Amino acid sequence: MIRMLTIPVTGQGLHEITDRIAAVVAEAGIQEGLCTLFIRHTSASLTIQENADPSARRDLESWMTRQVPEHDPLYTHTIEGPDDMPSHIKAALTDTSIAIPILDGRLALGTWQGVFLWEHRTSRKSREIVVHIGA
Amino acid sequence: MIRMLTIPVTGQGLHEITDRIAAVVAEAGIQEGLCTLFIRHTSASLTIQENADPSARRDLESWMTRQVPEHDPLYTHTIEGPDDMPSHIKAALTDTSIAIPILDGRLALGTWQGVFLWEHRTSRKSREIVVHIGA
Amino acid sequence: MIRMLTIPVTGQGLHEITDRIAAVVAEAGIQEGLCTLFIRHTSASLTIQENADPSARRDLESWMTRQVPEHDPLYTHTIEGPDDMPSHIKAALTDTSIAIPILDGRLALGTWQGVFLWEHRTSRKSREIVVHIGA
Repeated sequence: MIRMLTIPVTGQGLHEITDRIAAVVAEAGIQEGLCTLFIRHTSASLTIQENADPSARRDLESWMTRQVPEHDPLYTHTIEGPDDMPSHIKAALTDTSIAIPILDGRLALGTWQGVFLWEHRTSRKSREIVVHIGA
Repeated sequence: MIRMLTIPVTGQGLHEITDRIAAVVAEAGIQEGLCTLFIRHTSASLTIQENADPSARRDLESWMTRQVPEHDPLYTHTIEGPDDMPSHIKAALTDTSIAIPILDGRLALGTWQGVFLWEHRTSRKSREIVVHIGA
Repeated sequence: MIRMLTIPVTGQGLHEITDRIAAVVAEAGIQEGLCTLFIRHTSASLTIQENADPSARRDLESWMTRQVPEHDPLYTHTIEGPDDMPSHIKAALTDTSIAIPILDGRLALGTWQGVFLWEHRTSRKSREIVVHIGA
């Protein structure tokens, strides 16, 4: 089964999508299998991170932005603005696809794991994720 | 088929788990398919690395720790100690899930590839990995 | 279905393989499913990146090489030359496996997404990728 999700985003940072993915798994109605996520963009990505304390996500975003700064004079791919090239680098360092086993009809996530869409650009309004559910 | 593995760990660094995964593949008894690994934590991760010379793994750990140091004054997520926030960043930069094809009844790894659990915290004793075997 | 692909490479950088993967999907002849790629090396990797403007890929390569320089005096794994240890680190930071859903008989890539083999060594001539197609 495949479902295409449109995820609204509001600026750079981690947007939790665990509930959206869990709803697709519930709809599939299988007890055991594999749920694979794929984001159809090269300037946003996927990650699994701590879902409890938002300070961990803020520090993660802050570390990444220091490593991949805007306005680096060595960038040549700047036509779409200062957040363009950093967004491609950040996407390359994180995940375009993630696979999560399904056990007892649910995502087999650990207690503190949430699924996040990581938006790297400043002004996008939504992103597309493909969810594949297999046996 | 899904198996839950508990992997003992002894401090930060790469712990090889190739044999544990290969045993699940052997138990599944299929000739061709896909083996997907998923780690149920946000402060430890998975990676495939050279399995021959341990110096490559030590240099990898050393590079990563220089890029993501403990005691960075910009971290705010510090309640669990100095290895807490770096562990989340290191996990985000590496893999939470990895898929390895199964060919002729075995993991289709290259000659020098080993599968590793990368422990980023100092005092954990074990970690959980979910192994999914599909057609 | 599994196919083993030998990909010719010509030095460090991103080599597009989208057409090679699409050909395997076409051969499989399924309408809906999952295509998983696995590279059998620890000094080359996979990534999905912008396929339109080559300047994005050059800047990505350049950023990565600045973060993971050759001739770092802290490397001890240097027996195969100055591009050896950086190649393992770059591979750890990017992907060994990527899963792409198949929809309407084709890879469900976004408009600007291409699939790339990222060669991190200077003198390799070819690399092996395993392609698994599942339902």
